[in-house]
Amino acid sequence: MANSHLVGVRIETFDDAQKQFYEARNDGFAFIGIDLFPVLQLCPQSPHDVAEMLPLVRSDSIYPKKGMLYLILRCLGDSICGAIVGFTSKWIDCDSTDPRISSISQLCLQKELSWAVHLALPAVEVSIRHDNNVKLARVLTAFIKSEMAPFKIWISVPMYVGGDNASHTCGRDASSPWHWWCQLVGLAGPAACESLGLLLEMPADLPEEGIVSRWLSEPVTCLALSTQLFITNSKGFPILSRAHQHVLRKFLKINAQVLIKGSSQHERGLSIYRQYISWLWKCTVEAESLYEKYSIGFEDQLQEPLQPLQDNLSSATYGVFEMDPYKYRAYEEAICLALVHRCTSRKEGESRQSPLLELDYKGDCDVKQVIYILGAGQGPFVDASLQASRRSGCPVRVYIIEKNSNALLTLKHRMQTDWLGEDVHLVPGDMRCLSAPPPEKADIFVSELLGSFGDNELSPECLDDDGISIPASYTSYVAPLQSLRIHIDVSRCMDNPKFQERIHRHSETPYVIRLSNCQILAAPEEAFTFKHPRKDIGTTTNSRYCCLTFVPREDAIVHGFAGYFEAVLYDKIMLSIHPQRHSPNMFSWFPMVFPLVSAVPVKAGQKIVLHLWRCISPRYVWYEWATTEPTVSKIHNSGGSAYKIGL
Amino acid sequence: MANSHLVGVRIETFDDAQKQFYEARNDGFAFIGIDLFPVLQLCPQSPHDVAEMLPLVRSDSIYPKKGMLYLILRCLGDSICGAIVGFTSKWIDCDSTDPRISSISQLCLQKELSWAVHLALPAVEVSIRHDNNVKLARVLTAFIKSEMAPFKIWISVPMYVGGDNASHTCGRDASSPWHWWCQLVGLAGPAACESLGLLLEMPADLPEEGIVSRWLSEPVTCLALSTQLFITNSKGFPILSRAHQHVLRKFLKINAQVLIKGSSQHERGLSIYRQYISWLWKCTVEAESLYEKYSIGFEDQLQEPLQPLQDNLSSATYGVFEMDPYKYRAYEEAICLALVHRCTSRKEGESRQSPLLELDYKGDCDVKQVIYILGAGQGPFVDASLQASRRSGCPVRVYIIEKNSNALLTLKHRMQTDWLGEDVHLVPGDMRCLSAPPPEKADIFVSELLGSFGDNELSPECLDDDGISIPASYTSYVAPLQSLRIHIDVSRCMDNPKFQERIHRHSETPYVIRLSNCQILAAPEEAFTFKHPRKDIGTTTNSRYCCLTFVPREDAIVHGFAGYFEAVLYDKIMLSIHPQRHSPNMFSWFPMVFPLVSAVPVKAGQKIVLHLWRCISPRYVWYEWATTEPTVSKIHNSGGSAYKIGL
Repeated sequence: MANSHLVGVRIETFDDAQKQFYEARNDGFAFIGIDLFPVLQLCPQSPHDVAEMLPLVRSDSIYPKKGMLYLILRCLGDSICGAIVGFTSKWIDCDSTDPRISSISQLCLQKELSWAVHLALPAVEVSIRHDNNVKLARVLTAFIKSEMAPFKIWISVPMYVGGDNASHTCGRDASSPWHWWCQLVGLAGPAACESLGLLLEMPADLPEEGIVSRWLSEPVTCLALSTQLFITNSKGFPILSRAHQHVLRKFLKINAQVLIKGSSQHERGLSIYRQYISWLWKCTVEAESLYEKYSIGFEDQLQEPLQPLQDNLSSATYGVFEMDPYKYRAYEEAICLALVHRCTSRKEGESRQSPLLELDYKGDCDVKQVIYILGAGQGPFVDASLQASRRSGCPVRVYIIEKNSNALLTLKHRMQTDWLGEDVHLVPGDMRCLSAPPPEKADIFVSELLGSFGDNELSPECLDDDGISIPASYTSYVAPLQSLRIHIDVSRCMDNPKFQERIHRHSETPYVIRLSNCQILAAPEEAFTFKHPRKDIGTTTNSRYCCLTFVPREDAIVHGFAGYFEAVLYDKIMLSIHPQRHSPNMFSWFPMVFPLVSAVPVKAGQKIVLHLWRCISPRYVWYEWATTEPTVSKIHNSGGSAYKIGL
Repeated sequence: MANSHLVGVRIETFDDAQKQFYEARNDGFAFIGIDLFPVLQLCPQSPHDVAEMLPLVRSDSIYPKKGMLYLILRCLGDSICGAIVGFTSKWIDCDSTDPRISSISQLCLQKELSWAVHLALPAVEVSIRHDNNVKLARVLTAFIKSEMAPFKIWISVPMYVGGDNASHTCGRDASSPWHWWCQLVGLAGPAACESLGLLLEMPADLPEEGIVSRWLSEPVTCLALSTQLFITNSKGFPILSRAHQHVLRKFLKINAQVLIKGSSQHERGLSIYRQYISWLWKCTVEAESLYEKYSIGFEDQLQEPLQPLQDNLSSATYGVFEMDPYKYRAYEEAICLALVHRCTSRKEGESRQSPLLELDYKGDCDVKQVIYILGAGQGPFVDASLQASRRSGCPVRVYIIEKNSNALLTLKHRMQTDWLGEDVHLVPGDMRCLSAPPPEKADIFVSELLGSFGDNELSPECLDDDGISIPASYTSYVAPLQSLRIHIDVSRCMDNPKFQERIHRHSETPYVIRLSNCQILAAPEEAFTFKHPRKDIGTTTNSRYCCLTFVPREDAIVHGFAGYFEAVLYDKIMLSIHPQRHSPNMFSWFPMVFPLVSAVPVKAGQKIVLHLWRCISPRYVWYEWATTEPTVSKIHNSGGSAYKIGL
C-alpha cells in the first residue's frame, strides 16, 4: 500500500462552478472530476439532432461553455491542473447500434480527448456501458498511440450489473462489465493498456465474492462511491455498511483512489465523506501484517530471481534477509531438534535408530556434532547453531563454508569477536569443489539455497552429501495467475525500443514478485520435490517434468503461473510460502511468476494444462513452460534462451 | 512452382548398403533417406532393455554401425552429403506413457540429432505417431535454438489415420495427424518452426477433400510415397491411380519433393518410379495457367503494397504491369462501350438519358469526347482510348495527366512518335491539384489507381470529379486465411535482431502475396464499396468500417485475412481477383493479406468475427483490423502506427 491516500470529488452541476471548485479544495479533496464538454451533455435523440450537431462538430465550432473554460484555465493558473480529471460526455456511445450516434460519438470523443490534451489534464474518464466496445477501443487505442499517451484514461464501468432486474449471477455471464473491460483490454493490446486504468463504480447491492475479487487483478485506479451508498450511524455521521467497508478496504490495498459522487447527505458537506474514507484507509494501513509492511513498495514489481551461486550477494541484501523474524528462528529450531534427536538416540543406547536418522552414529554426546554451514553469508546460521547447541546441551563444532570473498571479511571479523572461544572454523571456497575440505565429515548440513520456487537456487545441485540436511526436503507449487498489471509490465519491453535488445528475454523470464494486484485462479498444485540426502544418486537426475491441470471457477484471463515452495527443514519444522499455509510474517521469499507471452482467455470450468520442465546442462539449470489447454502456447524459455541459472 | 523437381529414395536395409547407395545415385535420385543410428533400431521392449541401454546412451559409448558410419563419411567425401536425409530411430517416442521409454527416447533423440549436426546433413526426419508430442516439442525446440538450426527437421506424419479400423471422418477429430502437427507447431513457436518441414505420408485410401486440402497450407517439404501405392498399367509400368495423381499434383504445386519408400515392384528397379514422378511433375508444369507462369518465384513472398501516389513507379514496374493480357483489353472495352453509349444516346435523339449516363450531354458526335487519363504511366490507356475511338467511331480528345517526371519523358517521346497527329495532350502534375488544368471538362475519366484491395491505392481520395469514371465502382472482399508459411515470415522480424527496429511493423502491415501454400477457410465476404462519381460528396467520408463473420467448416488456425477486389470498369466490363470469379489470366494484382500477430485456433463451426476499418487523416489513409471471435485480438496497425498510405 502507498503511504498516502487520495480522495477526489465529482462536480456535476455548473451553477457557480468556481465556488464549488474552491470549496472542494478547501475540503481537502485531492482531485476533482468535471465535465470536459458541458455544452454537449445533451445526447442527440433524433436524426434531426444528429444532423444539427454533425456540421458543428466537423467545423470545430463547438467548444465547452465559456464559464467552464475560464474555470479550468483559472485552475491551470493555480497550478493545480494536475488535480483535475476530465469526464467525457455521458451521451457518447461509439458503439451505438444507430450508425449516426456511433459516428458522431467517435468524432466528439476525439474532440474531447484533444481538448483534454490541450488542457494538460492528468486523467480523462471514458465510460463503457454495454458489451460491445470495438469502435471505442479503436478510437482510444489510436489516440493513445498518436498522442504518446499524455494522460491516463480512466475507463468507468460498474462493478457489476445486477440488482432488482437481474439475477445476482449476472456478473458471471459472458456480458458482465468485467467481460466488457476484457474485450477493451484485448483490443487495445498490452502497450496501449499502460494508459488505461479503471474507475470502478461501487454498487449499492454487492455481488458475490468471486465477482468482486476478479476486479482485484485489474488496474483499478479509482473506486467511485456515491453518497447514496452511505448509511447514517448513531451519531448522525455517514458511514459505509460492513460489507461495503470490507470491499473498499480490499481495493485500498491495491492503491485504488476514491471518488465521491453525488450531493452531500450531511450538513457538514462533502468533506465528511473524505474524512471517513481517510479514516478507513488509516485503519487498513494499521491492520497491515508484518509481511505487508516489509514489502511496501515491492508490490507487483518484477524482480529478477537472485543467483547466489553465480553472483555474490551484497551486504545490504544479506541484511534485509537477516531481518526476517520467522526464517532464522525456524532454522534454529530445526538444528536444535536435529541435535536433540541425535543425543537422545545415543542416551537411550538403542541400536535401532530413529527413523528420522538413518545415519551411522559415530560417537557419544561428549563427541561434538559436526555442523557444516554451506553458504554462511554474514553468519546468522552460525549464531543459530551455537544457540541450538546451548539449548539442546549438545556440543557442536561448526565449519563455515563460504565462497563470497566479501562475506568472508565479515565472517573473519565475527570469528575474532562474536564467536571468539567457540569451536567455529572458516573454510573459504565453493562447497561443490573445496580444495581444502574440513578434516571431518559433517553430521548436519545447514544451507539456505532455497529460492522462491524451492529448487531455483540450485540446492539440488549443491546438496549431494550424505548426512542430515537442513532443509531435508522441499516441494514447489504452481497456480494459474491473472494480473493485467504484470502482463503489461512483462510485455513492455516488446514495444519499447530501449528494451529491444532484450526482446523475448523479459517476456520469457521467471520473475520474483510480491503479488498484490492479482488473482490466483485455482488452488496451487505440487510441481517438483527434492529430498536430502538423496538415496538414489546415479540413477535419477535433477531434471524434472510435470503436467498440471487447473480448473478456474470463473471466466478468467491467464497471464502466467505463480510459483511457491514449501520446505521441511527438519522433522515438523517447516518454511512455506504456499498461500494457504504461509509461515507467519516470513518475508524472505516472494512468489515466483512464470509469465505467458500471450494472455490466455479461459472459460469457467475449462481446463488449463501447464507443462513445466526443470532442465539441466553441464553448466546451467533452467525452467521451460508451455500450456496445451485451453490453447497451445509456445514453449517459453526454450533451451534456456531467455533465462538460465549458472552452476 | 519451382523449375526443377526432386525425387528421393529411402534405403531401409543395410545389407550391402554401399551398393544400394550407388545404385540410387545412378538411378537419378536427388537425395537418399537413411537411418542415422541403425544399431538402435530395436525398440526397448522391457524395463530390462531400458536398464541395459540407459548407461550406454549416457556414457556416449553407443555409435552407429561401423559400416554405416563409413558409408556416410564416404558420401561426405564424395561431396554429396547434401543429398542425405537422416532418419531418427523409429522406436523413439519421447511422449511414451512409459516414463522409462520417454526418458531414454529424449536422450537418444538428442544424441541422434547431434550426430546429424556432426555429419552436416541438410535434413533429419523425426516422426510423430500420436496426439501428444509435448516432450518431443521441447527437445526439438531447445535443439533448434541452441544449435542455430543447421538443418531442416522433417516431421514425418501420416496424411490421415483412418482406413479399416477407423471411420473416414477420423481426420476431423481433435486427434487427427493435422492436430498433432498443429500442437507441435504451437509449442515450437514461429521462430523454431522455420526449421520444421513436413514429410507427409500419402495413404492408400485417400481421405475426403477437406482433410487433404488443409495440408496444402502447411510447409510440406516432402511427400512420402510407398511403392505399394502404385498400380500397374496395361504396359506393365507402375502408375498412381487418378485420385492419387490428383492429390500428388496439388502438393507438387506447392513445391513438395517426393520420397519413394519400399521395394520396387518392377523389374527395372526403383528408377521407374522416379521417372514416373518426374513425368507427372512435367505434366503439372505444362498445365500451368498464364497467371501461374507469370507469378513463378512470387509464390507466398511478402511484398509491400505499392504506393503509386506517394512513390514514383519504375519503368520496369510499369513494364511488368503492361504485359497483362486481360487488364488493358478490359479497359479498352470499357472505354469503347462508354463512347458507344454516349454516341448512341445522341443519335437516338432521346432526351431521357441512359441510366448509366447521368451526366449533362454537351454536344453531338462530331464534338469530340474528352477523356482524361489520370496517371498515365507509360501510356497504355492512351493507346486503349485511341483504339476504342477507332472501333466505336466516336472521336476523342485525350488529356494525359501524369505526375511522375520520369514517366513524363517517355510520354513526351510517345507524343512525338506513336501519337503524332492524334488529338492527345500532356498535362504534367498531380491530378488532385493541377496548376494548369485542361481547358475543358472531361466526359470520361480513366484511371488505374486500383490496388489489390480495391481502394488501397487511394482511388476514392483522387476521383471526386463529375463525369463517367472508368472504373465506375469497386468492392473489396475478405476471407480468413490459414498459412503457416506466411505466419512464420510475418513473425520472423520479431525474433531476428536485425529486424528489431521494425518490430511491430512487419507483423501489422498488410502485404501483397501471390497465395499458394495456403488455405482460404471460408468464402470471401464483401468489405467496402466505392462508386464514382459520388453523389453525396460532403455528407459521407471515405472512411469505412465493416464487421464480417466467417464460419470455417473444419478446425483451422487463422493466420490472417486475404483481401481481394472486384471492379466494374463500365457497364458489364469487370476486373476481378475474387477467387471464385477471377478475370482470366489477369496477373496485375495478387491478393492482399492482413496478417494476425498471433495465430488464432478455431473449431469447425465456430465463428470468426473480423472488424476492419479504413481510416483517414488529413495526410494518410490506413487500415486497422482486429478479431473479437473466437478470441479478442489487439487492434492491428492502430493509428496507422505500422503502415499508412501517403496522400
